[in-house]
Amino acid sequence: MSVKNIVLDTNAATANQIRKKLTSYGITSFNITASPGAGKTTILEKTILALRDKRKIAVIEGDIVPIDVERLSELEIPVVLADTFGACHLDASMINKALRHLPLESIDLLFVENVGNLICPAHFPIGTTYTVAIASIPEGDDKPEKYPLLFGNADVILINKIDLIPYCPFSIKRFTASVRKINKTAVILPISAHTNEGMLSWLSYVKKSKIS
Amino acid sequence: MSVKNIVLDTNAATANQIRKKLTSYGITSFNITASPGAGKTTILEKTILALRDKRKIAVIEGDIVPIDVERLSELEIPVVLADTFGACHLDASMINKALRHLPLESIDLLFVENVGNLICPAHFPIGTTYTVAIASIPEGDDKPEKYPLLFGNADVILINKIDLIPYCPFSIKRFTASVRKINKTAVILPISAHTNEGMLSWLSYVKKSKIS
Repeated sequence: MSVKNIVLDTNAATANQIRKKLTSYGITSFNITASPGAGKTTILEKTILALRDKRKIAVIEGDIVPIDVERLSELEIPVVLADTFGACHLDASMINKALRHLPLESIDLLFVENVGNLICPAHFPIGTTYTVAIASIPEGDDKPEKYPLLFGNADVILINKIDLIPYCPFSIKRFTASVRKINKTAVILPISAHTNEGMLSWLSYVKKSKIS
Repeated sequence: MSVKNIVLDTNAATANQIRKKLTSYGITSFNITASPGAGKTTILEKTILALRDKRKIAVIEGDIVPIDVERLSELEIPVVLADTFGACHLDASMINKALRHLPLESIDLLFVENVGNLICPAHFPIGTTYTVAIASIPEGDDKPEKYPLLFGNADVILINKIDLIPYCPFSIKRFTASVRKINKTAVILPISAHTNEGMLSWLSYVKKSKIS
């Protein structure tokens, strides 16, 4: 067995333990993956502001520099940095450590903001209920073709920044067709965290989410 | 010495060999780094179209799926895929292999399009003369703070998609100030590969480049 396979198998085992732990606490969790600058933190901010009165929310932040931890901490919910020590993705052991710093018995929804990267996060499941992939209009509509593992395994795909559609060469039809070649079931939601267009559909998805 | 340090030292040694080899052939080379969707391939296309009659250009493409190789091959210049085998960055040994497939004696300018990622490519020099970091307006102006190694080590930083400035919360002043905290010397060029605004400054930079 190669070193790579040992690393991935160990990660998968830890991810399973995390899944069981979160389920036992009744926590529904989301692994948020995207390129740098696709809008992960802004979407999280808006989601937290819309739902924090109805659900008990916590965030694990996977950035290499803790700027977003400071940004989200202003929302008066528990936010913990998962230190990647410079690595380009979160792994399950980092989540395990971060969970020790969260009050699990009083959390309904846990959002994990992964490191901005479309490659490595797709190789490392972290035990969340849902995987969210965020694309954004200015990045172009070829991203599902280029990063099939990430978009192929997502439960929900947000197409963010749709307010920029008039100014960018992006076809939602082409993007959706590319996704469907590799992922028949993902829910695809066009949104703009900037103008709030489509955000109600995403919030509804989150509210209906189940641990399962 | 840790495994990580051995890997980085081996890479640095190979990068030095590549630098010497390219210099001996009189080739000026550029390592193009950016997020996915920042505009690397479009900038390369426009650069090649503008300069291919005056300079002999070749490209090494570092994508995990060879879509951009096909795109650039239409420009009738040598384009080689550096296979990363799914990894999230190029390293010097991949460049060494790719160079075997290029006619080095008849190349003036070599562009290496790195994998779309703001973290790992910064840890792996690949022996090029220049390192180019591309940011783009919709990604937000906080990227130099979040990815200091990549923006700190760049020789030239392109701020692409400036045609989107009216629609995005991006301050070129804030971006530039963040860069200057970590990089006193990088040339910063705002451009739009879409509208061609600022492209002449970038082309002039490439034309004046020297092996050194």
